Amino acid sequence: MRDDDAVRAALATIFDADTGIYRERGFQRRVGFGRRPALVHIDLANAWTRPGHAFSCDGMETIIPAVQALNEAGRAKGIPIAYTTTAYEDVDGPNSDMGLWVHKIPVEHLKVGTEAVAIDDRIAPAAGELVIVKKRASGFHGTHLSSYLNAQGVDTVILTGVTMAGCVRHSAEDAIAEGFRPIVVREAVGDRVPGVVEWNLFDIDAKFGDVEPLERVLAYLGGIEPFASRAAAVG
Amino acid sequence: MRDDDAVRAALATIFDADTGIYRERGFQRRVGFGRRPALVHIDLANAWTRPGHAFSCDGMETIIPAVQALNEAGRAKGIPIAYTTTAYEDVDGPNSDMGLWVHKIPVEHLKVGTEAVAIDDRIAPAAGELVIVKKRASGFHGTHLSSYLNAQGVDTVILTGVTMAGCVRHSAEDAIAEGFRPIVVREAVGDRVPGVVEWNLFDIDAKFGDVEPLERVLAYLGGIEPFASRAAAVG
Amino acid sequence: MRDDDAVRAALATIFDADTGIYRERGFQRRVGFGRRPALVHIDLANAWTRPGHAFSCDGMETIIPAVQALNEAGRAKGIPIAYTTTAYEDVDGPNSDMGLWVHKIPVEHLKVGTEAVAIDDRIAPAAGELVIVKKRASGFHGTHLSSYLNAQGVDTVILTGVTMAGCVRHSAEDAIAEGFRPIVVREAVGDRVPGVVEWNLFDIDAKFGDVEPLERVLAYLGGIEPFASRAAAVG
Amino acid sequence: MRDDDAVRAALATIFDADTGIYRERGFQRRVGFGRRPALVHIDLANAWTRPGHAFSCDGMETIIPAVQALNEAGRAKGIPIAYTTTAYEDVDGPNSDMGLWVHKIPVEHLKVGTEAVAIDDRIAPAAGELVIVKKRASGFHGTHLSSYLNAQGVDTVILTGVTMAGCVRHSAEDAIAEGFRPIVVREAVGDRVPGVVEWNLFDIDAKFGDVEPLERVLAYLGGIEPFASRAAAVG
Repeated sequence: MRDDDAVRAALATIFDADTGIYRERGFQRRVGFGRRPALVHIDLANAWTRPGHAFSCDGMETIIPAVQALNEAGRAKGIPIAYTTTAYEDVDGPNSDMGLWVHKIPVEHLKVGTEAVAIDDRIAPAAGELVIVKKRASGFHGTHLSSYLNAQGVDTVILTGVTMAGCVRHSAEDAIAEGFRPIVVREAVGDRVPGVVEWNLFDIDAKFGDVEPLERVLAYLGGIEPFASRAAAVG
Repeated sequence: MRDDDAVRAALATIFDADTGIYRERGFQRRVGFGRRPALVHIDLANAWTRPGHAFSCDGMETIIPAVQALNEAGRAKGIPIAYTTTAYEDVDGPNSDMGLWVHKIPVEHLKVGTEAVAIDDRIAPAAGELVIVKKRASGFHGTHLSSYLNAQGVDTVILTGVTMAGCVRHSAEDAIAEGFRPIVVREAVGDRVPGVVEWNLFDIDAKFGDVEPLERVLAYLGGIEPFASRAAAVG
Repeated sequence: MRDDDAVRAALATIFDADTGIYRERGFQRRVGFGRRPALVHIDLANAWTRPGHAFSCDGMETIIPAVQALNEAGRAKGIPIAYTTTAYEDVDGPNSDMGLWVHKIPVEHLKVGTEAVAIDDRIAPAAGELVIVKKRASGFHGTHLSSYLNAQGVDTVILTGVTMAGCVRHSAEDAIAEGFRPIVVREAVGDRVPGVVEWNLFDIDAKFGDVEPLERVLAYLGGIEPFASRAAAVG
Repeated sequence: MRDDDAVRAALATIFDADTGIYRERGFQRRVGFGRRPALVHIDLANAWTRPGHAFSCDGMETIIPAVQALNEAGRAKGIPIAYTTTAYEDVDGPNSDMGLWVHKIPVEHLKVGTEAVAIDDRIAPAAGELVIVKKRASGFHGTHLSSYLNAQGVDTVILTGVTMAGCVRHSAEDAIAEGFRPIVVREAVGDRVPGVVEWNLFDIDAKFGDVEPLERVLAYLGGIEPFASRAAAVG
């Protein structure tokens, strides 16, 4: 990861030019925070958070503490907390649940039930928190995540995790498509190659959700009413 | 289950009248078998197939052998075989993944990882066969079933299992909506209360998929080409 | 529709027996009304509400006034109101958007832009009310209905329309799957063949949503707070 | 669009570094072409293809001829061709079908039935080609596109259109998630701000679909068998 500064400078130049056009056209608006948030942590399992895997990502020294802080703030208010991992029942048979994705990326390393696909125990799910085993990039695609959040009456999805160029990006796009306000926490997302965090955050902030600093998200969580699930009440 | 004959006679009278109208109007057409089938077994887990559960169903003396015969025929051709079960991570917390359904039916008995929600071992999934843990009635809703079947190039979904008034009905409706030919195997489906198998098969056959006898489905499976997954080939 | 009384008596006998079993098992619970309802009217277009079509249904003398009353009550509170119709761009080409459904029912009569598929003008949509052109049975499948309702913060879907054995049934099943409380208005739903209204209402009330009389739904709508869209507010 | 060369040089440096890591890790594989393609043209309506709109994009001098050539080749083989546009029934009411997206980008300019949202007549849809009015970024989200393609037996989705940082990107991600091979035609896609075409093509090619030159896609279309819809045949 050489020349990070040069990369950032080049991207900053492009982002400035683009922002000029976007502002003039009416893009880059703020979707804002709603009143009933959930935390959704994308693929913070060992194959992504620990070194030595095909999927290993950088920046865990920042991401993990950020997620811990978010979980603490979220748990204090009783909001829904969901984690995704990506894993497959069958990684070598002809009718594998990997589908076509294995022809693009090395998902053959992600076997259901292995340590690699378990959520990193530094941010272990507590009782009553949901782990969703997904097969595709988005946390919403082919899963019960949208149905789950909708049943609880969630209006805002606070996203963390990896990777920005893959699963977090697709999840943010789907979140607003499903009718949730996407908030991506800048210090809590990462990737494994240079540049892609920056440009994917730029695209998301322009069009799909608000990219916010951790501090602001923690302040928001500190200020909301305790979460009362819409599903728990009999109508 | 008293008065089965009287029930069947009353229903047969209604079905005859309805069939007259449907035929005149152009309903009750045949969708037919395609060339690339999959078997999808709905909720044939112990809570449904064994006595003593809230969800226990009748007719397993016919259903289980029918499913065994279908699996044998399907495995001989290498077609995709998927099983669903319905189970929840959290059956008592405020943000449960049961969502709203617990306010209609007793899904609080269906805990992930228990014997109750495991597929009945008389029809145990073989290696490379898929078990999908769903949260809702349809095998397609909030799951990767459609994506999985589509990736393999499946065109026909052969449905078995329980219950006709719930999960099998909803799965058949979704199957044709997703673009698959639904075939419901008459001897391989069941329920727990009188009448509902008959009227749900009647509705499905009129509008959503073909209800076919086991013998005909076995003959069809015997006659197809061995299944070559579309996903397995690099394009 | 001969022998209606005999049909109803036979079905009532079955329903009584089934209800005994369902109650003992913990089914037929009440999902209840939430706080933020929407009205969703299924396929009340001329091909279903007027005589002389393959899809013509019975009971419009009751259904139309019920829907008018519901719309009046709903509009007074500003709740979202959506109507579906089923129609196709291309009803005879090889790559028709009818997909497979034409192999079961006569959807070749439902052409986009014709009077047949326009919403019945006795219940004409007002400005700001949504008409969704769907391709499949469920109002939710392959449409933006769920995303629309979720963005507005809706928690309860009040269903009317036709047919009970087709599109209303599938929509009710999908509504609870998506995380909404389904309420089916007994006087506001219908079909074109005997028996199917009764048994589909029975199945729905047992498992998917509450079947309620018009009077009770009107009283509920009279008592809710005026609807403030969640999407209209900047977060 | 100043300094295009500097931007491209800076991005090329990053892409080179990223490609080194991706190759070492087993990303950037080829999904390849299948046997049954469809063409899906994203948002090539006047608001994007003509100057003077908030959504106007660059590069139409290349994109329009590329799409014309693809349509000619596709029509010669009878493959399904679908166009999307983004448009809303209600752009100012409290319960608008814009949902939350208007809080990020200026979709209030996209009214159903206006010239702005009509497909550019230089690439006018022919009889039997599908126009899908979508509400969200992806051509698949909340639409019947997946169901339509699946019913026809399509295995490959050839994508063109705008914008790369929005609707084309999200559509490519959804295409592989749904089980289709995504092929993005390099000369047939565009955007309205510098850089985003390049980095989104880079991300897609690394993870979601193959980015291919027009010439190669035309050669592929020239070589396939004439398309016989799976839905047209009775099973």
